[in-house]
Amino acid sequence: MTGADPTRGGCPVPLAETEKVLLGHGSGGQLSAELLRDVVVPALGAAAAETVPEDAAVVAVDGLDLVISTDAFVVSPLFFPGGDIGVLAVHGTVNDVAMMGAVPLALTVAYVIEEGFPVADLRRVTASVGAAAAAAGVPVVTGDTKVVGRGAADGLFVTTTGLGRRLPGARVSAAFARPGDVVLLSGPIGAHGTTILSTREALGFEAEIVSDTRPLHRLVATMVAGAGPAIHVMRDPTRGGVASTLNEIAAAARVGIEIDEAAVTVPAPVAAACELLGLDPLHVANEGCLVAVVAPAAADALLALMRSTPEGRWAARLGSVVEEHPGRVVMHTLMGGRRVVDMLVGEQLPRIC
Amino acid sequence: MTGADPTRGGCPVPLAETEKVLLGHGSGGQLSAELLRDVVVPALGAAAAETVPEDAAVVAVDGLDLVISTDAFVVSPLFFPGGDIGVLAVHGTVNDVAMMGAVPLALTVAYVIEEGFPVADLRRVTASVGAAAAAAGVPVVTGDTKVVGRGAADGLFVTTTGLGRRLPGARVSAAFARPGDVVLLSGPIGAHGTTILSTREALGFEAEIVSDTRPLHRLVATMVAGAGPAIHVMRDPTRGGVASTLNEIAAAARVGIEIDEAAVTVPAPVAAACELLGLDPLHVANEGCLVAVVAPAAADALLALMRSTPEGRWAARLGSVVEEHPGRVVMHTLMGGRRVVDMLVGEQLPRIC
Repeated sequence: MTGADPTRGGCPVPLAETEKVLLGHGSGGQLSAELLRDVVVPALGAAAAETVPEDAAVVAVDGLDLVISTDAFVVSPLFFPGGDIGVLAVHGTVNDVAMMGAVPLALTVAYVIEEGFPVADLRRVTASVGAAAAAAGVPVVTGDTKVVGRGAADGLFVTTTGLGRRLPGARVSAAFARPGDVVLLSGPIGAHGTTILSTREALGFEAEIVSDTRPLHRLVATMVAGAGPAIHVMRDPTRGGVASTLNEIAAAARVGIEIDEAAVTVPAPVAAACELLGLDPLHVANEGCLVAVVAPAAADALLALMRSTPEGRWAARLGSVVEEHPGRVVMHTLMGGRRVVDMLVGEQLPRIC
Repeated sequence: MTGADPTRGGCPVPLAETEKVLLGHGSGGQLSAELLRDVVVPALGAAAAETVPEDAAVVAVDGLDLVISTDAFVVSPLFFPGGDIGVLAVHGTVNDVAMMGAVPLALTVAYVIEEGFPVADLRRVTASVGAAAAAAGVPVVTGDTKVVGRGAADGLFVTTTGLGRRLPGARVSAAFARPGDVVLLSGPIGAHGTTILSTREALGFEAEIVSDTRPLHRLVATMVAGAGPAIHVMRDPTRGGVASTLNEIAAAARVGIEIDEAAVTVPAPVAAACELLGLDPLHVANEGCLVAVVAPAAADALLALMRSTPEGRWAARLGSVVEEHPGRVVMHTLMGGRRVVDMLVGEQLPRIC
């Protein structure tokens, strides 16, 4: 679940009983946060766990800190350069568990299949789930399959849940960012979202851009083993992109964040696709990088550690946490100016994951 | 996941690459078992956990036996007499965890919502999730919300995952049924499936039949505390009904099962609806009863224990496990004959849960 921003300006319109759910409510941006804050969390009532909303939850059992995370995947198209819905579901869930500083131990997979879906495609997606899970070293322990009539779903939806165990020394939360902390980014951004969109729209970038979908739990384990207590926040900037993730951290911790545009690596074909599509790369979904907010004394060592791994070899120092403008993210632009980096509003890229 | 029956006769047709997924593949019956056996499990390959497929899996962490289960809910209509998709999702998952002899500790909830779905309905379903989880004493710890375009889903699908902890003394599996064991059934059957179908078809039974959806973890805890090691199998006969559950047990344990028609309680309005709809109550989905296969010496005590609980007050001795006809379920009919009770074939009741 994603936190809403109590410090943000503007005039949030309450979701009246007569309203309809919009595509933007699934964006991972501001509308998603409002749906959670105004509808889901109040309706859950006493059953909702009272913690800062994260992409995963910690459940303490007998002194063991278990981590559990669940995600529904509805990406369209199901197959895209660099992966498919099965790979994406495994990586997305492994990563959500890892972002709590945890080792993933087991996965579950639930399918909702539209009647008439080709068995060959189901086999292909399932083989991807199997291969991605095996490569990540996480078994698929149970699952479920439902079939709905033609037109009642769009091919295949996949919901994965991950169970993990928090690593010793790891204690991270979006709320733990503090002024003076350094913001690190593990790699280039924008590849996943632009891949999906250019494939869907047949824009011709397919040869140049592939999704960055990859598991990040080994990178996380390396970071935690090296400097666990110095890591205050870890998040993978998926739906809503780096901008939404940084805004969520700023809101949860009631701090400001300043980032340098020069530190944001956008691969040239991704940048070209973004320009053509009118997208801000900071709002585009990623599936293979993470943002870490770390104590300043450990930042250089952590950056070096990240760069020593295949997943983090392009890691960069993105910016820092400040006391000023709590709840806001500000970017120092290449032109020497400053601009506010907003959370994604509305639905820029529907069904991106 | 559901086990296939290697001992069953007939001629299973392999699912060729050119084939399409049918509604019947989601029935919980024989086609579901074939889809798992022929497509899902082979495609998962090394990532699939190698155990007898159950509705939940045991994951051992540091000497702790955790149980995890996941289910996608696609019931139509979303609201029905006795419950809605939210209640059903919570109870279904609590029960799948409980059927491993476990106490449920936490739930996750993932929504796939169709664009245009009324916010009021989302609030209502979520309030049901919250109320059912609170009544069961299990917190909702995390979740996910995705939105797809109009026509890409039918209103709302809910996928829930339950995390539990196996109770001391509990060690159950469909494979553990052995000749001489007694088969117990906790209550009357057929209410859930006939409620959904008569609501959907507006058959006019709505005033008389309500879904039996209820959590069974307290009944299970009572049974395990009373005679844990004597309980060999526990299953809730949901999709595919009591017939499919008994066939799964017979197949997994390579035993025969004999049941008495006289011991099967079908409430009169349920029986009337089944007759009108041409349904065998043994194939109709239940959401509030369980089948237990127990050691004969403990059967009377367990039956008394079950009857001492609100959920099990109509518990009955359904039959017994035999060496003969392994993989087959045979019923002694009220007329004094014998008939084979088959697994549900095809899709009798689409989108029942």
